[in-house]
Amino acid sequence: MPNPTALPTHIVERFAAGELVAAIAQDVESKDVLMLAWMNQQALAQTLETGRVTYWSRSRNELWEKGLTSGNTQTLVSIAFDCDADAILLQVHQVGAACHTGERTCFHNQIEQHFE
Amino acid sequence: MPNPTALPTHIVERFAAGELVAAIAQDVESKDVLMLAWMNQQALAQTLETGRVTYWSRSRNELWEKGLTSGNTQTLVSIAFDCDADAILLQVHQVGAACHTGERTCFHNQIEQHFE
Repeated sequence: MPNPTALPTHIVERFAAGELVAAIAQDVESKDVLMLAWMNQQALAQTLETGRVTYWSRSRNELWEKGLTSGNTQTLVSIAFDCDADAILLQVHQVGAACHTGERTCFHNQIEQHFE
Repeated sequence: MPNPTALPTHIVERFAAGELVAAIAQDVESKDVLMLAWMNQQALAQTLETGRVTYWSRSRNELWEKGLTSGNTQTLVSIAFDCDADAILLQVHQVGAACHTGERTCFHNQIEQHFE
């Protein structure tokens, strides 16, 4: 388990202020963007500790281990923060569908398929 | 230019309530996730109309056409919404660095490179 002090200062401050960070899950094999959800400090710590991606559910106001009920788990491969430390990119192994609709990714509503 | 009524109802309602949606830019060639920023209705409309990706800057409180000053533009290829319509995935052609630090992507701060 990594040392929490290794987290960027900006993230630590953000969490201390009770703010969430946006977390993007990307399929490490296909590189498809699967979903966007949110993390607080506890969700990030649990994800790092267990290797099973865990978000903070803003609607249920509780930790949400992805796939715990559906079986469609996300196993963590790597994590990166962005330059201003308000977003996290997770590389994951996705079991089954990432989306609760049964679609592989949550971004299946295309509105502009061929702009160029 | 697409008909604005083609936008999902959830997005229209969200914008009408003054809420922003998270916008993820993905490099259409490499499939790297480049950055996460925010859009309001005006930013999305301008992006669709011009084909040049335009965000809403939360810090400057103004429209922000990506690359207008740096030259590191993003040309829109396609757009998808997620299942609960609070996030947008943009497929883009990225000129130069997406990140203001000069890195290709904003997600260059890896904290957990080899979890498995």
